[in-house]
Amino acid sequence: MNATSDINENTNTTPVTVPVTVPVPVPAPVTVIGLGLMGSALATALLDAGHATTVWNRSPEKAKPLADRGAQVAATPEDAVAASDLVLACVLDYDALHAVLDPLAATGGLAGKSLVNLTSGAPEQAEEMARWAASHGAGYLDGGIMTTPPGVGSPEMMFLYSGSESVFEAHRATLATLGDPLHLGTEPGLASLYDSALLGLMWAAFTGWLHGTALVTSQGTSAAAFTRVALRWLNGAVSGFVTTYAPQVDAGRYPGDDATVDVQIAAIGHLIHAAEARGIDNALPELLKSTMERAAAAGHGGDSYASVVEVLRGLR
Amino acid sequence: MNATSDINENTNTTPVTVPVTVPVPVPAPVTVIGLGLMGSALATALLDAGHATTVWNRSPEKAKPLADRGAQVAATPEDAVAASDLVLACVLDYDALHAVLDPLAATGGLAGKSLVNLTSGAPEQAEEMARWAASHGAGYLDGGIMTTPPGVGSPEMMFLYSGSESVFEAHRATLATLGDPLHLGTEPGLASLYDSALLGLMWAAFTGWLHGTALVTSQGTSAAAFTRVALRWLNGAVSGFVTTYAPQVDAGRYPGDDATVDVQIAAIGHLIHAAEARGIDNALPELLKSTMERAAAAGHGGDSYASVVEVLRGLR
Repeated sequence: MNATSDINENTNTTPVTVPVTVPVPVPAPVTVIGLGLMGSALATALLDAGHATTVWNRSPEKAKPLADRGAQVAATPEDAVAASDLVLACVLDYDALHAVLDPLAATGGLAGKSLVNLTSGAPEQAEEMARWAASHGAGYLDGGIMTTPPGVGSPEMMFLYSGSESVFEAHRATLATLGDPLHLGTEPGLASLYDSALLGLMWAAFTGWLHGTALVTSQGTSAAAFTRVALRWLNGAVSGFVTTYAPQVDAGRYPGDDATVDVQIAAIGHLIHAAEARGIDNALPELLKSTMERAAAAGHGGDSYASVVEVLRGLR
Repeated sequence: MNATSDINENTNTTPVTVPVTVPVPVPAPVTVIGLGLMGSALATALLDAGHATTVWNRSPEKAKPLADRGAQVAATPEDAVAASDLVLACVLDYDALHAVLDPLAATGGLAGKSLVNLTSGAPEQAEEMARWAASHGAGYLDGGIMTTPPGVGSPEMMFLYSGSESVFEAHRATLATLGDPLHLGTEPGLASLYDSALLGLMWAAFTGWLHGTALVTSQGTSAAAFTRVALRWLNGAVSGFVTTYAPQVDAGRYPGDDATVDVQIAAIGHLIHAAEARGIDNALPELLKSTMERAAAAGHGGDSYASVVEVLRGLR
């Protein structure tokens, strides 16, 4: 009879506490460059998670509240970068980022570091920065923060990353203290491209929602009442359509079934008419209608709304 | 020792089956006028739920598949309406509806009936139809179907109703076989107004999503991969913003906090630039940008995006 079967057969043993050595991850030191609202939120989330956090900002008074929470305040960018293998940067723009990093990179200060750049910019700027970082011996990840500062630290908020996969994997646990980290691919510009594409979706949805809100509130319904229905619609049926349409875009074929572009051109007439009668600005539905009409004119009248992507790609 | 404590103390009793009389609702008879794709889907859902269903269509061959599933096919609209207290109508437009109902209403055929009109139209048409139905002794509900025919019968799909609350309450259980019935108010035009407003949100979201999809797929990412992130964004952070903004619209005050109109005007520049560089049609983001700029010019630069509703209401 071996020890295992002994345990299985004897269920009346008294529980005993056995000391077991398990690896407890020590939060890695992190440096945060740039302490605007977003940079300060990043540093706060790291401090809250127990990371030794070194901060630097051009105007040092921004560091004061973080110092009160236990941050090390570096006197220079060079000192800040020297303090941690992982350096997060979140400054005004890429010019500001180069102004901070160029001097210390010139003296070898970036060699061996992992630079995670959360500064907003264009995909091409991210690509240039990745090449520049590589030329100074640093690994590079570009990031897009898909929330506002108060959302930093919530595990459901998305942080988009692109660039070095090994930098991402090495620091995934640390990045996860800021939000849910998603690695989109090794091309450094992808996070910026996704960021812009997602914000575009947001502004379009916001404006469509506000147009509908203007319409319905003109009849005495509250925005809050309409919005409860609107969000259920957006997160239910509309999301279902989008899920159906995405593979149509990838296949370049857009079966219309029962919701064709022609049917929707007819339906948007009701919206425009109802909004006009209530004095609401119709620039958005008029543009949507003309975009559908361009799709129909290109032969997509019997196709699904997904075929509108062909119109949007038209200038290529 | 009473029976209850006997049951509690004796856990070794054999379970016995006790006959209990419970009220079993008998599905009410329903008439469906108009058997296009949507009307046929309505009749099918009613038949599937066990309702005695009478159908009528101008071209009778559309009734054949429903007859095969057990529907009674009426020879005339008058016979169809006579068969049930509840009459659902879903025809091409209001002219077609009057052409069907006017003759039988003139001879008293609508008296005491509940007319639920699911025909698409303007709020004013719904209001006119409600008055017309009342003048012929019928209760009236106007409806908006927030799904395509294949979605009819799914309990998560929304069916919007407005008009008589007593008609709604009397037939709520039957209407629930079509989808989730929501009563928006007694004003008959409300369902049509919500329908248009929700479709406007849908087209705006579709087009914003397709613009982002065009942008990201130009860099080799699949639409399906982008869409997974886009839906999480839409159903998470974007819905969160909308939930925050709705009471701002009701209050007429739009505190911007960390996501002001000015900040978003700067950010949309990145999107327009990135899309332009990839040959993508920018009519939508250009319109969104100019709308934000109009909000800023009206003094809302430091406010939240919800303040854009003031621009959309500007013509009043």
